[in-house]
Order: sequence, then C-alpha cells, then structure tokens
Amino acid sequence: MDTVKVIVAGPRGRMGKEAVRMVQETGHFELAAVLDRKYDGQRLGDLEGFDGVDVPVFTDIHQCFSEVEADVLIDLTTPETGYVHTKTAIEHNIRPVVGTTGFTDGQLEELKQLAKEKGVGCIIAPNFAIGAVLMMKFSQLAAKYMDSVEIIELHHDRKLDAPSGTAIKTAQMISEVREEKKQGHPDEKETMTGARGAEMEGMHIHSVRLPGLIAHQQVLFGADGQTLTIRHDSYNRASFMSGVKVCVETVMNVDTLIYGMENILD
Amino acid sequence: MDTVKVIVAGPRGRMGKEAVRMVQETGHFELAAVLDRKYDGQRLGDLEGFDGVDVPVFTDIHQCFSEVEADVLIDLTTPETGYVHTKTAIEHNIRPVVGTTGFTDGQLEELKQLAKEKGVGCIIAPNFAIGAVLMMKFSQLAAKYMDSVEIIELHHDRKLDAPSGTAIKTAQMISEVREEKKQGHPDEKETMTGARGAEMEGMHIHSVRLPGLIAHQQVLFGADGQTLTIRHDSYNRASFMSGVKVCVETVMNVDTLIYGMENILD
Amino acid sequence: MDTVKVIVAGPRGRMGKEAVRMVQETGHFELAAVLDRKYDGQRLGDLEGFDGVDVPVFTDIHQCFSEVEADVLIDLTTPETGYVHTKTAIEHNIRPVVGTTGFTDGQLEELKQLAKEKGVGCIIAPNFAIGAVLMMKFSQLAAKYMDSVEIIELHHDRKLDAPSGTAIKTAQMISEVREEKKQGHPDEKETMTGARGAEMEGMHIHSVRLPGLIAHQQVLFGADGQTLTIRHDSYNRASFMSGVKVCVETVMNVDTLIYGMENILD
Amino acid sequence: MDTVKVIVAGPRGRMGKEAVRMVQETGHFELAAVLDRKYDGQRLGDLEGFDGVDVPVFTDIHQCFSEVEADVLIDLTTPETGYVHTKTAIEHNIRPVVGTTGFTDGQLEELKQLAKEKGVGCIIAPNFAIGAVLMMKFSQLAAKYMDSVEIIELHHDRKLDAPSGTAIKTAQMISEVREEKKQGHPDEKETMTGARGAEMEGMHIHSVRLPGLIAHQQVLFGADGQTLTIRHDSYNRASFMSGVKVCVETVMNVDTLIYGMENILD
Repeated sequence: MDTVKVIVAGPRGRMGKEAVRMVQETGHFELAAVLDRKYDGQRLGDLEGFDGVDVPVFTDIHQCFSEVEADVLIDLTTPETGYVHTKTAIEHNIRPVVGTTGFTDGQLEELKQLAKEKGVGCIIAPNFAIGAVLMMKFSQLAAKYMDSVEIIELHHDRKLDAPSGTAIKTAQMISEVREEKKQGHPDEKETMTGARGAEMEGMHIHSVRLPGLIAHQQVLFGADGQTLTIRHDSYNRASFMSGVKVCVETVMNVDTLIYGMENILD
Repeated sequence: MDTVKVIVAGPRGRMGKEAVRMVQETGHFELAAVLDRKYDGQRLGDLEGFDGVDVPVFTDIHQCFSEVEADVLIDLTTPETGYVHTKTAIEHNIRPVVGTTGFTDGQLEELKQLAKEKGVGCIIAPNFAIGAVLMMKFSQLAAKYMDSVEIIELHHDRKLDAPSGTAIKTAQMISEVREEKKQGHPDEKETMTGARGAEMEGMHIHSVRLPGLIAHQQVLFGADGQTLTIRHDSYNRASFMSGVKVCVETVMNVDTLIYGMENILD
Repeated sequence: MDTVKVIVAGPRGRMGKEAVRMVQETGHFELAAVLDRKYDGQRLGDLEGFDGVDVPVFTDIHQCFSEVEADVLIDLTTPETGYVHTKTAIEHNIRPVVGTTGFTDGQLEELKQLAKEKGVGCIIAPNFAIGAVLMMKFSQLAAKYMDSVEIIELHHDRKLDAPSGTAIKTAQMISEVREEKKQGHPDEKETMTGARGAEMEGMHIHSVRLPGLIAHQQVLFGADGQTLTIRHDSYNRASFMSGVKVCVETVMNVDTLIYGMENILD
Repeated sequence: MDTVKVIVAGPRGRMGKEAVRMVQETGHFELAAVLDRKYDGQRLGDLEGFDGVDVPVFTDIHQCFSEVEADVLIDLTTPETGYVHTKTAIEHNIRPVVGTTGFTDGQLEELKQLAKEKGVGCIIAPNFAIGAVLMMKFSQLAAKYMDSVEIIELHHDRKLDAPSGTAIKTAQMISEVREEKKQGHPDEKETMTGARGAEMEGMHIHSVRLPGLIAHQQVLFGADGQTLTIRHDSYNRASFMSGVKVCVETVMNVDTLIYGMENILD
C-alpha cells in the first residue's frame, strides 16, 4: 500500500489528539502537518503532549496546502471551520475526511458538486465508530430476513434522553426495509405500564440506565427456533479512530463525496 | 450416599415422566413404585413409554405406603390430590417433595404443624428450576452491595403478560433488602413513551417478546466502573428436574416443612 | 405477491413435516402435492399427523410433475433421491429448493449446467438456518474493518467434535477477506495449556460444552475502545424453516443454480 | 447511620485519589485527615487536584492518630508502609481497611492476634471490586447445585498471561465445593488443539484477548434444559471504590480481622 500523507486539523482537541496518535501508529500513514488556530510556524513536537512529533503547525490553510504535499485532510474542528477547510481542501486536490453532523443541506450539496467537478473523493461522517455503523448496517440487512426485532440500548445513568439517538437511527434504518408489523402476542397485556418498552412501527425499544455502563446497544432478531443478536459496546473515545482510519484509506479510492460511513462499507 | 427409595405420583404427566426418568438415571436414587389414578396392580413397564421400568403401579395411597418401603414421595399431581398425598405421606413417615403453587395458606400451615410433630422433612416448591431460584437468590444478595438494578426478561411471543411472574418475584425479593431508590438521571426524559420500561420501587423492568425465544431473564447491577449480570436461560421442561433432584437429596436431611427452594440453598 | 405452488418431497421426515407445516401457514404459499416413497394415490390427510391436509401423495415423480401444476419443489430427502428429484424438477420447469450437503462436485456442476440451459432457478443449501447464515456473512463483512476476531461456540455436552463445523466455516469465510494476523500480545503466555483456545490463521476459537446448552455461537470483533458481537442461538429444528421460506421466495426470481444461502442474501 | 470519620493514607496515588473522592461524596462519611509521605502540616486543599478539600496532611502517623479523632483508616500505600499503618491504627483503636496482596502470612497472623486482643475490626482485601467478589462467591454457591461449569474470561490484548488470576481463583473457589468431574462427552475430540480450553479439575477455562476489551469474566453453569450465567464487567479503576465503601461500613461492626471481601458478604 502506498503511504498516505495526512494533515490533521484541530490536533489539540480530544478527537484531534487521538487522530494524531492514530496517524503516527499506522504504518502506511504519514503525518505531514497540522492545522491549528494558534502556534503558526512552530513544530508540533514543541507543544505539550506531542513530544517527538516533528511536523510543522500552520494557521493559514492556503499556506499549509501550498507548502505541504498531502493526500488527505482529517478535519475534527467545528462545523464553521470544517466547512471552509473541506471546501479549500477539495479545491487543492486534497481529500477531506470530516467528522461532523453540523453541515447544512445547502453546504453538503455545494461540497458534493465541487467534489464531483474536481473528481476529488471526500467523506463526511456523523459517526466514526465503525462497530456502531456495522451494527446498524447489519441490523438493516437482517431485518429483511428476520422481521421480528427488539432493540435494547444500555447507557450510564447520567444520560438524559431515552431512547438513545443510535437506537432511533437503527429503528429508522430497519423501517426502510421492512413493513410496519405489530409484534408480540396480539392480546398481550402490560400488567405494569412500560414493561414492553417504546414502540416504533412495531419494533420495541428498551433503554437501560445504570452507573458503570458506558454506551452499549444490542439488536435482537427472532424467528422460529432461533435468535440473532448484534451488539456493539463502546468503551471510550478511541473507538472512533478505527473509523477515521477506514475513511482515510477509502477516500483515496473514490472520486465523489460520500455522506455517512454506512455508505462506504461494502 | 445411601440409596434413596422414591415413589413418584403422577408418572404419566409431562413432569411425572421426566421425574421417573430422572430417578432412573440418578445412581443413588431407586424407583420403588408409582401412584397413578389408573392401572392398579399393573407394572409400570407395561404402560406406553415406560419400557423396562419394572415397578408396581398403585391407585390406593394407603396400600402403596403399606406395601412399599420408601423414603421420598415426589408428587407432581394436582393441588387437591397433592394435598392428600402430602398429608398421608408425612403420616407414614415418608418425606414429600411437592411441586405446586396451589396449596392454601391454611393447608400449608396444617402440613407444617404435622411435619413438625412427626419430625418428617417435607419440601413444597412453586418453582423447581434451580437456575431460576439461584438467579433470584443471587440478585437479592447482590442488591445489598450494588443497589442500582434493572431486569430484562425475554420470552417467546405467545406470552400474554408483561412483565413475567419471575421478573416481578425477583424485584420483590430485591425490594426486601434495599430501600426504594429513584434510578437513572433525576432529569431523564423519555422521548418515546415506555423506553425506560416498567418501574417498581425505582427498579426498571423490560420485557422482550420475540419468536424463537423460550424463557430467559437477566438482572443487571451497576456501580462505579463495573456491572454484574446474572442470567438464567430455560430451554425446556427438563430444567425442572435438577431442582427436584436437589430437593429429594435435601429432604432426607431436614425434619420440618420448607416452602420454596430458595430456602434450602445455603 | 402471487401464490407459489409447492410440492414437498419427504413429508414424513422430521424436516419434511416442518416444511409441510410452514407451507400451510404461509399465506402466499400453497401445498400442491407431496412426493413420498409410499402411499401412492392416497391423500396426505389420511396419514398420521397430517389431519386435514388434503393434497395427493405421489410415489412416481414423473407422474407427479405431469399431473400437478407447481412452481417449486422443496426436497428434504436423501442425497441420492434428492439428486434425481432436482434434475427431474429442472427438466419439468419446476424450481428446486434442496437441503443437502451430499451432492458431489460433479453432480453440482451438471445441475448448474442444466439450470442454466433451461433458465430455471434452483437453490441448494447445506444450512437453512437463516440466522446462522447471516451470522457468518456479517462476520465476514465485519472482519474487513475490524480484523481482530475470536469465535466462541457453545453446544450441549453430547457433541463429540470441537470446534463445531459452523465455527470452522466462519473462520474460513473470515480468512477469505483478511490476511493472517497474529492476535493477542506478542509475548502472551498460557500458564495453563489450551487457555487461548484453538488457532486458525491467528483467529482463536473456543468450544464450550455444557448440559442444557443447545447450539450457539458468538463472534467477537475488537478494535480500539469498542467491540462488536454477532451471536446466533439455535433452539430447535424449526429454525430451519425461515430459511426454506426465504429460498422458496427467492428461487422464483432467479434463473440459475445458487449454492449456499449466503449467496442469496443481498 | 452515624457519620464515619475517615483518614486516607496515600491520597496522591491513583487509588488514593479515588478514595478521597469517594469519602467526600458519601453522605455519612467524613474525611478527617490524610497521611502522606510529604507535605506535613499543610492542608490537602493546597495540593494539586484537591481544590477545596480542607483537611490536614500528616507525615507522622502517631501524631496524626493523636491529634485527629477518627474511626477508620483507608490504607492504599505499599505493603511495607501499609503493615506499619495497620498495626499502629489497631493500637490506636482506629479500624483499618487495607487494599493489598502483599502481607506475609506471619504479618497477617500477627495483625489478626492484635485485632482480636484489642477487639478492633480490620479488613484486608486483595480485591476491592465488589462485583468481581460477588461473581466468585455466587459461582461457588451455584456449583453446589449445578456442577457443570466453564469459565470465559475476556481481556484487552496487552495482557500477557492466560488464564487471568481471577479465572484461576474462581476455579479454585469452585473446586472447594464440588468434586473433580470430567465434563463434556467422554469421547469428545479436539479436531483443532486447544479448542476446549484449559482444564482444571474438569472445569474448562477460555481466555479471549481483543483490543477494545477491558476486563470481563463470565461463569457458565449448565444443567438439564437450562443454563445460569454470572458475568462481571470491569470498566475502570473507579470500580474498586464501591468495595472500599462497603468495607468502611462493615469494619465499624466487626471486632476481628477479616481477610478477603468474600468473607464480609452475607
């Protein structure tokens, strides 16, 4: 595999730090430079927490892209900055991998057009946790063949909303491929209100909240004499980096904008 | 271990058949006779499904207890018949192991007195599934030290009521040892009604119903940085026989009436 | 959906009985006839266990296919009989769904050619448990993105061989898409032999055997900060019927021979 | 409940920091002072990371115990220091809760005698993770009634040894209550070496190592038609604090030395 030269924007943020580490630790990736709001002209290795990472820090994106030869930009900044970065990168023939849910439909459409014109690959992903994306994709596939499904999501007890966004997204993806279906016994009765969970097009969703838990979800499918369970456990922020890595590898082989990691998995 | 001589009442019922098989297959048990509504004086081996089981069939209980030397009566008949059997067995110094939820408080009290007077052990159990009894007992013990708990019970989709009786009993046993406690975030919100399940003294209970499932329950305890899960899976009726076996062994060493298997486990 | 007219071969076998029941219970399927070694000319409803199933029984396959209008043949007989049935069915323009692992490569090749010439769909499946097929397929997909994997298979303690055939097949399917990879710490040590399980191209496989268990497998994938688990639980023989049903629906829309259910799932 | 006044020894270590936090956050506990190798006479709140924790820091243990009124000493230092602290605390009528595996048998015996003479409670625990201790204790209890058992422990792939110490300890505790028993089919065969895991007195132990995992163990019990599973998931260091808290509460009500948390749980 050819070495992929990477620029990371936002290296001092929590996600950015992980991204720098991931690029360093991946054999066929090479960190070429970082884009930061401050520290223009310094070396990253001089900043706290980046001992020995000897690449230049740029504050001006145009200067960065002119002086540094790079293949991919990993952008983990804000939607506002990210939008400018993404656009500028495509114009400079550098492929962006962007983690955000914050772009407007108009912005996405404009970036899509630009990527197409230039023939430059670009991946924008609201969720980089590859295991979670696989869980949702597999759940959608399974629902075509086993259409009785319940979702159990389990989170720490500091979470305010139930069900989780991932559970709702999973149910929506399933509802795209199966018809609404009343599940359970037609005459089933709750002797205690709420026992059967929330319901969405016949699917039941259950939210567990306990101290100690982090972020977990299991999707259960049942059919005559068998069950299929797909479960994702997310333990910490590092879980996003496998996804960023896959996106960097994939973006080198596409020439359009792709939105959502589920659309890059075969 | 001395051989325990056993009489089985109700050998042709579904549970009775399993009991006969269990006694035959247990090295230190010996089937001495069976009590049946019909076939007085015949050999059990002559009836369909009992090839080679050469013990006498009795219809009259007094005659049975007079002619056969036995240590234990396993009774898997109806509450009405079972009550008469249990009483008569104690009077004949034979220790009853009875599976029923149908005795009245008055009957239980009377049998308790009789067992005490005679110094004859007797075990009456509403549930013989030893794994389920252990799950409930362990859940009660765990709740003393980890007081945040949620219960998920999962059954086939022909089940009418939610939550299951076992889930409710588990929650009741836990509530005996912990104070009521609001769980989850104080400000948590259900964006879809029912997501957080049913609530009993702060414990949340979730009921999953899917084709393929049989009878399963897991009890989750959470504390800082850790979770403890206790799960029972019941696959078929044979699951009751381990419990009957433990009761037969235990009843030989007690001289009073014990109600509920949870009270014979150390 | 148009009604699919089905002939079942081998209706008195364990699988055949389930197939007859499944066809009867599926709204858009219609049982047209059965093929049986005996009872030529009788009605299926006259045989024990088929009360009210009023279709003709044929012993001669040519006569059956001439007299009965049918779309699909479900064959659950032996490899020898099944081969003749499959060939004859294709020649009569009836689409076979066959459950067997027993055809030779030569037979498969011949049937493939025949199906192609005639443009008649045919599905031959070694395993109809749709959940198991999905588990294997998803495992293969997941391994592309999360290449650290261990397999735990759990079976009743009457099983002789370890690991199970499904575990080996799963590992083989995964090895088609990922490179061999030493997993675990490079310096890891077993202080008790066998603790780390069997190894196949770096994947570790663990076989659990306990009374009570039936047939279960879970495939675990790990990456930084997250795990993905895919689990199949098979509780009884009925689990195969969901797969047969999917095959009957699918075979109506294909015009070649397909081997293995994993190749009909999108 | 009366307020329990606590001294923490080793407040700047990783465990000590958590202990200070736990005492602060527990309503009926009150932090009275800390023992530290340095900073004698300062206030803890002046040290980094302890903003607003206004208690005195002592370097001399005798001075500390003379000047501060306290009920319990939580010691999370080294075995050498811990031994001196424990002995001195008992002599001053302060009840020690000590986390260490490092005391010699001679030291333990001496402390035991001293505690007995003085009638002062003392708890020394090699493992404070209450969920893990409950898992081991419940496994031992369950094995009396369901004697077929396998252990699966799952850890991150930086772990060197397999099986884990907890898995071995669990198996040892089970072997105290059940006789050695060959499990699995008498004629079972490994077609791939190691599939059936490590074996200890007939129990099989399986070690899974994957990136992403932290520290998990499940103990499976099987019997006719049912399984019982006890699982502990440890996500981070905070998991030890629930155990420390239970020990502080318990040590107030005992007047001898107890070794191992499993011996304080009812």
